[in-house]
Amino acid sequence: MTAGAGDSYVRLVERFRRLAHFRDAEAILYWDRAVMMPPGAGEARAAQLAALDRVRHKILAGEETGALIEAAGAGDELGPWEAANLREMRHAWRHATAIDEALSAALVTAGARCEMVWREARANCDFETVRAEFAKLLKLVREAALAKAAALGLDPYDALLDAHDPGLDRAAIDPLFAELSDFLPPLLERVLARQTAEKGIPTPGGPIPAERQRALGLRIMDVMGIDSAWARLDTSAHPFCGGTPEDIRITTRFDERDFASGLFAVVHEAGHALYERGLPEKWRDQPVGAACGTSVHESQSLLMEMMVGRSRAFAQFAAPLFREVLGVAGPAWEADALYGAFTRIEAGLVRVEADEVSYPLHVILRYQLEAAMVAGTLEAADLPGAWNEGMERLLGRVPSHDGEGCLQDIHWYQGAFGYFPAYAIGAALAAQFFAAAIRADPEIEPAIGRGDLTRLSAWLADNVRAKASFATPRELVIAATGKPLDATDLRRHLEARYLEGAT
Amino acid sequence: MTAGAGDSYVRLVERFRRLAHFRDAEAILYWDRAVMMPPGAGEARAAQLAALDRVRHKILAGEETGALIEAAGAGDELGPWEAANLREMRHAWRHATAIDEALSAALVTAGARCEMVWREARANCDFETVRAEFAKLLKLVREAALAKAAALGLDPYDALLDAHDPGLDRAAIDPLFAELSDFLPPLLERVLARQTAEKGIPTPGGPIPAERQRALGLRIMDVMGIDSAWARLDTSAHPFCGGTPEDIRITTRFDERDFASGLFAVVHEAGHALYERGLPEKWRDQPVGAACGTSVHESQSLLMEMMVGRSRAFAQFAAPLFREVLGVAGPAWEADALYGAFTRIEAGLVRVEADEVSYPLHVILRYQLEAAMVAGTLEAADLPGAWNEGMERLLGRVPSHDGEGCLQDIHWYQGAFGYFPAYAIGAALAAQFFAAAIRADPEIEPAIGRGDLTRLSAWLADNVRAKASFATPRELVIAATGKPLDATDLRRHLEARYLEGAT
Repeated sequence: MTAGAGDSYVRLVERFRRLAHFRDAEAILYWDRAVMMPPGAGEARAAQLAALDRVRHKILAGEETGALIEAAGAGDELGPWEAANLREMRHAWRHATAIDEALSAALVTAGARCEMVWREARANCDFETVRAEFAKLLKLVREAALAKAAALGLDPYDALLDAHDPGLDRAAIDPLFAELSDFLPPLLERVLARQTAEKGIPTPGGPIPAERQRALGLRIMDVMGIDSAWARLDTSAHPFCGGTPEDIRITTRFDERDFASGLFAVVHEAGHALYERGLPEKWRDQPVGAACGTSVHESQSLLMEMMVGRSRAFAQFAAPLFREVLGVAGPAWEADALYGAFTRIEAGLVRVEADEVSYPLHVILRYQLEAAMVAGTLEAADLPGAWNEGMERLLGRVPSHDGEGCLQDIHWYQGAFGYFPAYAIGAALAAQFFAAAIRADPEIEPAIGRGDLTRLSAWLADNVRAKASFATPRELVIAATGKPLDATDLRRHLEARYLEGAT
Repeated sequence: MTAGAGDSYVRLVERFRRLAHFRDAEAILYWDRAVMMPPGAGEARAAQLAALDRVRHKILAGEETGALIEAAGAGDELGPWEAANLREMRHAWRHATAIDEALSAALVTAGARCEMVWREARANCDFETVRAEFAKLLKLVREAALAKAAALGLDPYDALLDAHDPGLDRAAIDPLFAELSDFLPPLLERVLARQTAEKGIPTPGGPIPAERQRALGLRIMDVMGIDSAWARLDTSAHPFCGGTPEDIRITTRFDERDFASGLFAVVHEAGHALYERGLPEKWRDQPVGAACGTSVHESQSLLMEMMVGRSRAFAQFAAPLFREVLGVAGPAWEADALYGAFTRIEAGLVRVEADEVSYPLHVILRYQLEAAMVAGTLEAADLPGAWNEGMERLLGRVPSHDGEGCLQDIHWYQGAFGYFPAYAIGAALAAQFFAAAIRADPEIEPAIGRGDLTRLSAWLADNVRAKASFATPRELVIAATGKPLDATDLRRHLEARYLEGAT
């Protein structure tokens, strides 16, 4: 190693460590805002977060960082993890510097303004309210995508994808999504018909007090290996997993009439939590020690929610626990009835309430529309029509108004494009990782039926969590499952569960 | 106004605004650490706070800040609030730059290490455990005091006082504390004798569930004018008031056998909260908009706790509320019995449990000892002996071990010197402000008896809260009460309450 390159690398490590401290502080402040903050403090908190973010951006995008990355060279003389760390540093730096400050500031301002108007539009259920603001924001998003494309040598939409999932591009997404849009609609139809024929299964009701649901959430977290020495469970309007690996903050919300909704939010977020917690401590504050992109992150939460939490094996283990902790009894609280309730298919209009069969179709619609908006082939004004047409094509239903249509998600109206695909890729990956895990250790599934997740956790720890960002997402998936991302395992899983009633 | 001076001032305002955002973010992270954070996250949180603190120090103590302050001149051509703001900026900058970075870092390290050993020593009740570490820390504290003295042109101990209370010095403290040590010991003796003769008053007992106590705390906060739109109540090991003016975080702890302890912690911290909340919004992020030093801050909490909360008038108003919210009844819950319990004198060995008659004596002992330690006339090794001798002289009691003696407070073992006097000055000022308030508006006291604190709040808002740091603490006290700080009003208050049973 030349002294200069090594020196530069060491200084970069120090720089990214500082950056991590700020990112972690922000994570707690975001959690606090969603969970604890009195309503009157919104503006002050925004100013605090902006101040921290500005420092973080200055550290990351500063000229000195670029110079150090250049001086550190290709990292050829570094060890393999160090070289991967340098690669991730370069990735972060390139994204941070790809857009100039004026455009970046314009995006933040336009995004904040559009989000505000979107809230009004959504309450009105009328896209027209937000059309003009959204058109302005979309123009800036396109500019940013073009700037990123130029800086990174990528197609504009791929450049947006690359920020969340290094290396992910439409060439990888398109065949997956084509396969999903091919087999999911007929599958959905068959499952719905089958369900109609199976009337009369008792469904677990309520009211179940929030305090009991919270106690159950904590018990399930414990079963999953989450410890109160490093994690909390609280409530917020939208469930999320925040905080940092040594200070995990899981949130959910409790509906007294529908305990499953709060519970599966906990299981889902706990999947994210276990990934964060399992990242290698040695690389804790470095880019290579971070999760391997958004899609893999989502795979970890969906694996816990869909493959484990909604499985027949888990219902068998959990039914007596539910009865004990929730203080309930009766036929609706037997394992079979619970499994039936947890795997009920609705095929509704709203993504966040969607079941696992229809969910990817919601995402595919968003992907098609946002790719077209970034490419300039779909204008803001034409969004509602395109949305409704797509819903009919993919799910066979048309929203009765924009509130349950193109206004339902906040993402676009904040300026977030290129994020949606991760939700469906994560679903496919969840099935792919789980299939690989049970191939490697056939005892995993019987153990789940006994409430023992340690065997599954061991496989995930070795093959996903401990790898962090050492490899790219594509390399990670191949190493862990023996093949690149595809839809085969998701298809098998859905057919087995919903047509054969097997898992 | 010359363009250069005005320009520099405007840039300073921007700089201190950024600084305030960091300080506010840190305030929430400190609150979170004490109230929410899982135990395993201590080290990570310390790293986050250190990173933020480093940025803040860099902004404040950076060369550019000094140059801007110099260029802004004496502020003669600024408006009066702007000039006061510049004065406060200079004060903050001078303190931040008075100690060089190496000494500052050595103090932080030695303080953290000594605090750790202190925890062990306190558990052992043996000063010897911490003696060596404390001697090292004390040496650094003396160096820092000398460096500050040289930079600020003050006596070394006065330089430490000046950081918390601009302009406060021993020349102001000594006569006050002399008067207090003169009249308090005989007063204490008379009150204890009187109490012994008054046996048989029923005392409110328990257990009272924490949830009910919390409900009472929230009701009392409401009575005091504290709104859940900008404030929270939570629990922590040591009560405090944290957060920011738009995001107040009050904490207390609930003892099921002693509801008064948790309640008066709320009332005390609510006094701090009302001060913070009442600071002028226009100057929100500027030094002149901050509280007028530690002593005045403590006066606002003690005024609410001692003058209002433990008064006969308040007990009369609150007794039915207590019975309703706590679900209690009986003779111990009548106003007179409650008042008796709230004004019971113990004269114990521990400061944080002390009543208002003996409290200032605890503080005076600490003041005498810390001034001697900074001056070099008292060595670390001689602290336990000097402590026990002082306790006997001032309170007539000797600790049976160092745990209830010189190890009871954390301050010195963290390297905090010059902070203690504010506790007793605050007590004197609380009485002085309250006396001025009821002179100005004789309806204040009858209103308190009806649970109406708005008249008192109006006087405090005009004379203390809205003034922020426009004047120095000494000027503020004279303007509000017509005289400099003295012990007359505290003496009158204590004699009236404890000898005449009048208030």
